[in-house]
Amino acid sequence: MDKLSSLAKYTASCPFLGRTKTSTLRTLCTSASSRYPSLSKLTEKATRCPVMGPALQVRSGQLVAGYASVAGSAEVNSIHHHKGVFPHPTGGNIEMCPHASKALAAARMAEDLARAKKEKDAKAAAAASAKPSTSKAAAAGCPFHASDVTAEAAKATATAGGFNYDQWYTTELEKKHKDASYRYFNNINRLATKFPIAHTGDPKHEVEVWCANDYLGMGNNPVVLETMHRTLDTYGHGAGGTRNIAGNTGMHLALEEELAQLHRKPAALVFSSCYVANDATLATLGSKLPGCVYFSDAMNHASMIQGMRHSGAKRVIFKHNDLEDLEAKLAQYPKETPKIIAFESVYSMCGSIGPIAEICDLAKQYGALTFLDEVHAVGLYGPHGAGVAEHLDWDAQVRAGNSPEPIKGSVMDRIDIITGTLGKAYGAIGGYIAGSTDFVDTIRSYAAGFIFTTSLPPVNVAGARASISYQREYLGDRQLKQLNVKELKSRFEALDVPVIPGPSHIVPVLVGDAALAKAASDALLANHGVYVQSINYPTVARGEERLRFTVTPGHNLDQITRLAKVVDQTFTELGIKRTSDWKALGGHAGVGMPDAKPVQPIWTDEHLGLASGTAPKLLRAGQKRIIDTRAVRITREKFNDLLGPVDTVASTVGHKQAGHKEVYPMTPSASVHAPTPVAVAA
Amino acid sequence: MDKLSSLAKYTASCPFLGRTKTSTLRTLCTSASSRYPSLSKLTEKATRCPVMGPALQVRSGQLVAGYASVAGSAEVNSIHHHKGVFPHPTGGNIEMCPHASKALAAARMAEDLARAKKEKDAKAAAAASAKPSTSKAAAAGCPFHASDVTAEAAKATATAGGFNYDQWYTTELEKKHKDASYRYFNNINRLATKFPIAHTGDPKHEVEVWCANDYLGMGNNPVVLETMHRTLDTYGHGAGGTRNIAGNTGMHLALEEELAQLHRKPAALVFSSCYVANDATLATLGSKLPGCVYFSDAMNHASMIQGMRHSGAKRVIFKHNDLEDLEAKLAQYPKETPKIIAFESVYSMCGSIGPIAEICDLAKQYGALTFLDEVHAVGLYGPHGAGVAEHLDWDAQVRAGNSPEPIKGSVMDRIDIITGTLGKAYGAIGGYIAGSTDFVDTIRSYAAGFIFTTSLPPVNVAGARASISYQREYLGDRQLKQLNVKELKSRFEALDVPVIPGPSHIVPVLVGDAALAKAASDALLANHGVYVQSINYPTVARGEERLRFTVTPGHNLDQITRLAKVVDQTFTELGIKRTSDWKALGGHAGVGMPDAKPVQPIWTDEHLGLASGTAPKLLRAGQKRIIDTRAVRITREKFNDLLGPVDTVASTVGHKQAGHKEVYPMTPSASVHAPTPVAVAA
Repeated sequence: MDKLSSLAKYTASCPFLGRTKTSTLRTLCTSASSRYPSLSKLTEKATRCPVMGPALQVRSGQLVAGYASVAGSAEVNSIHHHKGVFPHPTGGNIEMCPHASKALAAARMAEDLARAKKEKDAKAAAAASAKPSTSKAAAAGCPFHASDVTAEAAKATATAGGFNYDQWYTTELEKKHKDASYRYFNNINRLATKFPIAHTGDPKHEVEVWCANDYLGMGNNPVVLETMHRTLDTYGHGAGGTRNIAGNTGMHLALEEELAQLHRKPAALVFSSCYVANDATLATLGSKLPGCVYFSDAMNHASMIQGMRHSGAKRVIFKHNDLEDLEAKLAQYPKETPKIIAFESVYSMCGSIGPIAEICDLAKQYGALTFLDEVHAVGLYGPHGAGVAEHLDWDAQVRAGNSPEPIKGSVMDRIDIITGTLGKAYGAIGGYIAGSTDFVDTIRSYAAGFIFTTSLPPVNVAGARASISYQREYLGDRQLKQLNVKELKSRFEALDVPVIPGPSHIVPVLVGDAALAKAASDALLANHGVYVQSINYPTVARGEERLRFTVTPGHNLDQITRLAKVVDQTFTELGIKRTSDWKALGGHAGVGMPDAKPVQPIWTDEHLGLASGTAPKLLRAGQKRIIDTRAVRITREKFNDLLGPVDTVASTVGHKQAGHKEVYPMTPSASVHAPTPVAVAA
Repeated sequence: MDKLSSLAKYTASCPFLGRTKTSTLRTLCTSASSRYPSLSKLTEKATRCPVMGPALQVRSGQLVAGYASVAGSAEVNSIHHHKGVFPHPTGGNIEMCPHASKALAAARMAEDLARAKKEKDAKAAAAASAKPSTSKAAAAGCPFHASDVTAEAAKATATAGGFNYDQWYTTELEKKHKDASYRYFNNINRLATKFPIAHTGDPKHEVEVWCANDYLGMGNNPVVLETMHRTLDTYGHGAGGTRNIAGNTGMHLALEEELAQLHRKPAALVFSSCYVANDATLATLGSKLPGCVYFSDAMNHASMIQGMRHSGAKRVIFKHNDLEDLEAKLAQYPKETPKIIAFESVYSMCGSIGPIAEICDLAKQYGALTFLDEVHAVGLYGPHGAGVAEHLDWDAQVRAGNSPEPIKGSVMDRIDIITGTLGKAYGAIGGYIAGSTDFVDTIRSYAAGFIFTTSLPPVNVAGARASISYQREYLGDRQLKQLNVKELKSRFEALDVPVIPGPSHIVPVLVGDAALAKAASDALLANHGVYVQSINYPTVARGEERLRFTVTPGHNLDQITRLAKVVDQTFTELGIKRTSDWKALGGHAGVGMPDAKPVQPIWTDEHLGLASGTAPKLLRAGQKRIIDTRAVRITREKFNDLLGPVDTVASTVGHKQAGHKEVYPMTPSASVHAPTPVAVAA
């Protein structure tokens, strides 16, 4: 303990040190690396750190301590700047360290790792000249030069015969490091009471979140949290079993009923996640439908691709949103061949929207089922939040209110299978499918990923249902979100920041280089307290790396204004190309294309309430979101059967204030259009 | 609404009617079935009901209403007994019904469905003679005889060209009905404050739960719920993103640290479920390790089988727990071929335990990785709840306390990959892997099922960690559970009830027939308020159908006594074979085997505290479980960094009682052995 105590003062600047138990650190610095026995495990770890690794490489012979797989660059940089002396895991300074002589080996390792990144790093370093570079900071740091240990390291884990699994893991990880696709997770803790603010690994260090998929802030909606507190008290935590064995509650059945009604389908089924829903459903259909052929949009999500692969069925990929290509491919198969067209409504990384109605036409013509992933659309589009398929028949859907009956001929009615998530706009967890009774029953009966897993806890299921119920009644959050998106896009465009054009709520900003995208993300976090994760390969194609901003109704105008400013500033500092630069180069990834037509958002001025003057106002600093009392009332009533009416229990939302029944503002909703519900039951 | 209002009085007796919205019922009874346009959708549904279907078959021409996909037989039977008049969906009696003439077609459909089940039904009917049979009840019911509609139904969904998807769904579902593997989910709502009591679809109807996998009742442990209330207030509901994008919180990192320490491994990684953990990990390893061969125990769980299949790697299946067979198969491959032996510690449906140490020996000899699924063991075995691998080195593991350092040469240390769940003994949700840093990092970097999905909500993650932390400190729940298991097994054995012998906590009782197993489950629920799900094919082999009882530390002695009595009574009433019957037949599925050696539980009298006199006492009616104040204190302290100390906030467990800081009994733990923790951090 004593030997490690001097590390304590660095725990604020290094998130790894901060979160790692002393006993673990002791183990790490007193155990030999199994791969390189001449190194301690901690030193080995340091070579993988995004800062320490390069530092070891450029300053071979210097020994640095620390490991930052969860580092924000702000914290990491502060390690480099710290007094010019690096702490060593054994607690003393470098000179006192018994492992110091092993530093050269570590440096060599880092050198190997870094080689492949050189070209990109050179670019990034030039761009980053405005701030102290990693290597400069490292150079100022470590006073020690090491000596000998070198070649033995590479063969260290060779065992007596048999496959070398440890070496294989190393090789696989090195591939990730080499192509810059190794991921460092930022530690981000989104605060319910300060949305959209989160703290990092240090609870005192707060940042603004600009990339979460809690698109409407429903994760902190008071009626959701109230419902969850009540459910937790009544039913505890886990479901305790599969849906077949003790894990099927009234909460699950009611959620599925809510989802079926939302989509005006006869049935719905809830899964652990929409990844599992997509995977299990596509794997089941494709493996059981005789001779099934999948027609898959080139930009489909990984979960769909996995499901189709797992099915073993033939998979034909059509160009993204390209109806001609799709039709040409459909036409190559007899009409009686079972076919499934799998596609999305909103493509989350570029913000494009699928031609749903037209794909339904082709499906009918060629005898195909339609499988529509509305993961990035449910909660966000349509008068009731049922997604883009609902949005496309806005007026008819408004007229139909909350009736569960299908609207014949509507786009949503024509889609055979809709999948959605509870984990994004609904701010919860889980995923689902909706469709015909027999389709849903078939998946329920055959999909291993549904059958053989513990069902979601009642508390989450109840929270998800409360969220859906609230959003079915209240349009204001969807409108305000889209107004904020419009605002941010126009700010960016005015500043020549290269927004990839699209009709949806996604705000992708092109960077076009992996290292630069990460540098921009790091700089925004470190210098401006703005958290936006960079999106690199394999999530997007190489050369199309981007920052992907998500704006919620909880972001206020001052935050939007400041964001546009600091992004502009960061682009300048890092020398990242602007829209005009891409235009001069002939356009790239949708930005500055010579033949581009203007893209209209699918939220029209009518949908937004701008035409009627009922649009919600953008929030100013200090203003709280509007909570629709009518939506709260209707949502609460849905839970009274199982949880009892809220009036008869102390509201758990206000449990810290004894005597308060409700502590959140019950401001009447702004006079935006809210669809009139029909009575849904006695 | 008026036309349907007379249905209201039946909602208490039929769970379908009870939970279905009036508007939905209206749709169902006014819409034509797409498969059989001459029938209403509601009538079509009725043919699938476990009671209504056979009723339609034996009383062709009678029309019955209702649908009970979630029915307990008690409610369903009461429909049959109701006044001799069946309500019709349109609200009047049968005579008034425009759809009545379609009844014959429905009856024919039901007849088809029932044909394949005849043999089994005959057996079951004979056995069930003590209670009114379904068909008798139905016969007493319906006054109406229908007329004509017949042949047209079968071809009703034929469309103009193209594959008939609806017909295909029907066919697939009929297969399930025909082999009696179609599943009806019971509606079971486990009450946190009345554990192990749940209510059914009717909140006033309470039953005892005897088959949930919330093995220790941790889903209602007060320190878990307190932690979750606090986390919900601080961080809201959903995580809001993948681990890479805004969904990586301090809660997730701390949970993984807790899990790594629990298993004394360098690293752990959390997934949506252990289904996903197994699937994603095995699929990733098998597809990437060059020429990998899986050696898979014949009784492995579906999630492991799926993962191995999805990998595309060769899969060699060895006989359940058969070391000779495993060795013979391993020996067929060169030592340098990458191999993974995938197996479980506790096999959940038969209660057997894998020979872990011996498999490690073989793995070393033949150069294989070991992949051990401890899903039904974590929380339940070992002095700290780390599973069977920990349990096998009891004394050394006790001595090591909570140190995260591996115990060289221990069974747990020799296992390469451990997977576990948070959804069973820990009463939460989610699954995980634990192993070497590079192994975990490789899966983290490559497994699509981990990368591309929203991470678990902080509230669940915190609840799971609180549960693990508590169970690491408190042994009493594990001991009391096993004492209860011992008690129930000895009761059953004394009554000649055929328990399948095994060394674990699983209490499988052989029935040996699908229909009888379901009948026994239904009768226990209907007549005795005992919920134990029958386990049929494909979860177990045909002819080995069983009831699978789970006993928790929350079940008291009076409940155990009553359970043994009503199971004995039900076996008599249904004529189900006893141990002595199976013995006379030469034994079956482990019961009454002629050469059987006695099976010793792996919890010895020393582990249980019986040798030292420190064993916890079995609870009597009205007694509350013991809460270990020391374990509560240590668990709470782990959350203080992020949530603040409990002392400074009103305890949310007591939020309904203003002013109360804590409302649960802080009885000091019984003087059972509780391992002394080492200080784990400053």
